[in-house]
Amino acid sequence: MTQPTPPWPMNQWYVAAYSSDIEAELFGRTICGEPLVFYRTVEGEVVALADRCVHRRFPLSKSQLVDDQVICGYHGFTYDRTGTCVAAPGQKRIPRSARVPSWPVAEQDSLVWVWIGDPERADTDRLPRAPWLDHADYTTVRGMESLAAGYELLVDNLLDLSHETYLHGGHIGTPEVAETPITTEVDEDAHIVYVSRHMDDAACPPFYARSTGIEGRITRWQDIEYHPPCLYLLHSRIAPVGTPDPVEGRPDDQAFRVEVVYAITPETERSTHDFWMVARDFALEDTEVSRFLAESNRTVVLQDVEALDVLQVVVESEKENYQELSINIDTGGLAARRMLKRQREAGALVEA
Amino acid sequence: MTQPTPPWPMNQWYVAAYSSDIEAELFGRTICGEPLVFYRTVEGEVVALADRCVHRRFPLSKSQLVDDQVICGYHGFTYDRTGTCVAAPGQKRIPRSARVPSWPVAEQDSLVWVWIGDPERADTDRLPRAPWLDHADYTTVRGMESLAAGYELLVDNLLDLSHETYLHGGHIGTPEVAETPITTEVDEDAHIVYVSRHMDDAACPPFYARSTGIEGRITRWQDIEYHPPCLYLLHSRIAPVGTPDPVEGRPDDQAFRVEVVYAITPETERSTHDFWMVARDFALEDTEVSRFLAESNRTVVLQDVEALDVLQVVVESEKENYQELSINIDTGGLAARRMLKRQREAGALVEA
Amino acid sequence: MTQPTPPWPMNQWYVAAYSSDIEAELFGRTICGEPLVFYRTVEGEVVALADRCVHRRFPLSKSQLVDDQVICGYHGFTYDRTGTCVAAPGQKRIPRSARVPSWPVAEQDSLVWVWIGDPERADTDRLPRAPWLDHADYTTVRGMESLAAGYELLVDNLLDLSHETYLHGGHIGTPEVAETPITTEVDEDAHIVYVSRHMDDAACPPFYARSTGIEGRITRWQDIEYHPPCLYLLHSRIAPVGTPDPVEGRPDDQAFRVEVVYAITPETERSTHDFWMVARDFALEDTEVSRFLAESNRTVVLQDVEALDVLQVVVESEKENYQELSINIDTGGLAARRMLKRQREAGALVEA
Repeated sequence: MTQPTPPWPMNQWYVAAYSSDIEAELFGRTICGEPLVFYRTVEGEVVALADRCVHRRFPLSKSQLVDDQVICGYHGFTYDRTGTCVAAPGQKRIPRSARVPSWPVAEQDSLVWVWIGDPERADTDRLPRAPWLDHADYTTVRGMESLAAGYELLVDNLLDLSHETYLHGGHIGTPEVAETPITTEVDEDAHIVYVSRHMDDAACPPFYARSTGIEGRITRWQDIEYHPPCLYLLHSRIAPVGTPDPVEGRPDDQAFRVEVVYAITPETERSTHDFWMVARDFALEDTEVSRFLAESNRTVVLQDVEALDVLQVVVESEKENYQELSINIDTGGLAARRMLKRQREAGALVEA
Repeated sequence: MTQPTPPWPMNQWYVAAYSSDIEAELFGRTICGEPLVFYRTVEGEVVALADRCVHRRFPLSKSQLVDDQVICGYHGFTYDRTGTCVAAPGQKRIPRSARVPSWPVAEQDSLVWVWIGDPERADTDRLPRAPWLDHADYTTVRGMESLAAGYELLVDNLLDLSHETYLHGGHIGTPEVAETPITTEVDEDAHIVYVSRHMDDAACPPFYARSTGIEGRITRWQDIEYHPPCLYLLHSRIAPVGTPDPVEGRPDDQAFRVEVVYAITPETERSTHDFWMVARDFALEDTEVSRFLAESNRTVVLQDVEALDVLQVVVESEKENYQELSINIDTGGLAARRMLKRQREAGALVEA
Repeated sequence: MTQPTPPWPMNQWYVAAYSSDIEAELFGRTICGEPLVFYRTVEGEVVALADRCVHRRFPLSKSQLVDDQVICGYHGFTYDRTGTCVAAPGQKRIPRSARVPSWPVAEQDSLVWVWIGDPERADTDRLPRAPWLDHADYTTVRGMESLAAGYELLVDNLLDLSHETYLHGGHIGTPEVAETPITTEVDEDAHIVYVSRHMDDAACPPFYARSTGIEGRITRWQDIEYHPPCLYLLHSRIAPVGTPDPVEGRPDDQAFRVEVVYAITPETERSTHDFWMVARDFALEDTEVSRFLAESNRTVVLQDVEALDVLQVVVESEKENYQELSINIDTGGLAARRMLKRQREAGALVEA
């Protein structure tokens, strides 16, 4: 038995917020078309409920949180952390059907994940990891931007970094990025797309020059690891030209590691929560480096947002059946699209 | 013979404006999807015409009024108060079909009513009354707010005042409103829904404490009388706790009466003219009380507007066949909905 | 064989810009629904390409122009003036299909024209002329306004100048314009609609009084010559009352000639590029007259824009099958509509 293919993969974990975003206050956010309200209980657990009162659909996020219970701001229907209604106005009896759905939530690596799909199938073992975000050997700067474009345009963007040369020149782009061929690998079982670009002798863009202090040309490795649908990891290794390649078990002292992480969370079919994080293994206490990397990366993300917002409008205005032309640099992006398509199609299956 | 059910009751009177709004100037307002232009003739009669020139559809409200005639601002087609074209540019002969529809209008109780439907059936005997709006024993403050929501959401809102406790706390809401059960009565013949809530011992909200000067707890009666589709009356009686109930024929000296009136006039399917009036039988000359009640009630109305505007967006974004849950407090609102539904369905009948 | 009728005539020349607008910079403009990018090569030739990169549809107008080549701002695909891709990122081989369409362009009378339709049929002999725009005996002021209305509303507007009396009173309108009958002539072979209004004894509106210095009443001729779809010429002759009619071969010394030109270029189905030009044969060096005519005409155009923007919303909100009423003044406009309709229908024919 099938139903229409959903616009995003179902039965998946999506990043809903940073852990520090969710406190003892109501926090509304739409994830994959579902309006949700989040809060943290007194005991520290994160709760995700449907953001609609069962009575007249008023958003619970515009309501009040008292003693871990949500009191609807319109007529006072009151819900506990499981979504069960525990009080209704003007009467003692609570109708049995008075409950709002609750969603499985998990916290890991400083991220709040929510499971979109059948709650029975929520499995925290399948949560993809980004351990450096929450590790003492790294310092992380981060942010979130609202993208007025579908999530697949952002996936395309991040899977093909040759755009750094043109869209992000002066920040992270240099001529070598677009010039250097990539290698792509797809692990169908683990559901991961790998795209690698190793530049042996490249100009050092300001983003790395100013943060690492390297002068002169560099060896620059970009190793992408995309876990569809939501988590994107860019393992970036920067070292002065001539630094030997790292050897298992030996320290790679001259190299600097930057772990760039994106969480790509659909809000609606044409808007996306664009979470970005930059974790580094150097200058851990240097607030000036933190400030610079946060500002630079935000600038770069906003350049993408501007371009992709334009592209969304363009794509929507195209005649049907317009053609794209794909070349070698798109290998990773096309592999990601195929994997996302299969994930979406799996969501159309309803188990008997 | 039937036609599609219209989105609002047809062959009904709707409040179009306050009498003082209509002067010897063109005044455009859309009522039940009909763009209308209003003006007052030199003799004081209110005229309502279609707000579209027959020639090229230019809005007559953006035109000029000269000697009780409307001169179209685009090419000068000129209409008298009946909507008949009396002059056309570049020629002496006026085409016979050159006329714009005119609408039956009535003025009563300081309100301008317009009949939406078959003009032949307009019957001023059916005009619902709110005589205190224009009576020497009362002083009235009033306003009108634009609601970006369908009229039925406002009807729901006003028929169930338990929301005062949650949405209007600090103004007119206290815990007793939501706690006290209601009684509902429906007069099918007279087309009236009655909802009553009598609180014998309630906190006095600032709205009444500051205007009446009562200190301490009160007896508070809310007697709603809704005349679908447009007129809503809330007879409010406030008295110090222990004041005897009023007896027919005897003065009710210790009580204060406030007549709250709403006119609920659809503009489009998703916008509504929300007229509000507050008439009181005390402190008639006290401008400070007038100022306070006007400001308080406007604040309360804007809280409703904000909530209902949100709700309109929510309801439009819901999947089809979403469920509402109704409880005792909704009895009046559900009765009103049924009566409105029958009124709309009657509008789909075309007499043979 | 036919396809759906396009919303505007195909296989026609449309004004895309003033010649001076197009320099050695990328200039994006949508013409008849086609997003185009224009630039001028080093040799001075104007180029028009599709404003969409073949790779991922990024607008080329948001890209970079280097040595007459367009380098896409997203991933660096590079196109020459014919639209052929000459460089792609990360590889030497250029896919054969990597080309963006180019459009025929012509420059004449200070205007840049683009051919919308089958490039094979582009024929510069069919370019309509407005030679005074670029002639030493005339001085021209001009501008372009964006109209949020379909092009046919502007055609209606310009073909019936009786609206000058009502919409443009105090600038170019006087009572005589609306009062004086018109004569209309249609040349089906040449595809021209002529509308003439000769006022023998008329008030002189400020537009002409202040620019010509005439005091007192005037003979005022308005001779319209509309070349559908795009070019509209208004030959305006102004002379003191009593000036003899011009005679072929004799100087018409007491008269002033103003050539008002509009280019009506659809942008989308509900927006139009409204180019306006005013060429005069007097006070050629007088910058004060130039300033005054530019400011006055812009004011008049903006009055039209405001009215037509309103009208577009009105027309879109009308129930289907609403009726217009046309009278004598509409003869020219109706003839123009018929000609445009035939031109559009011709665009639905695909040659076998």
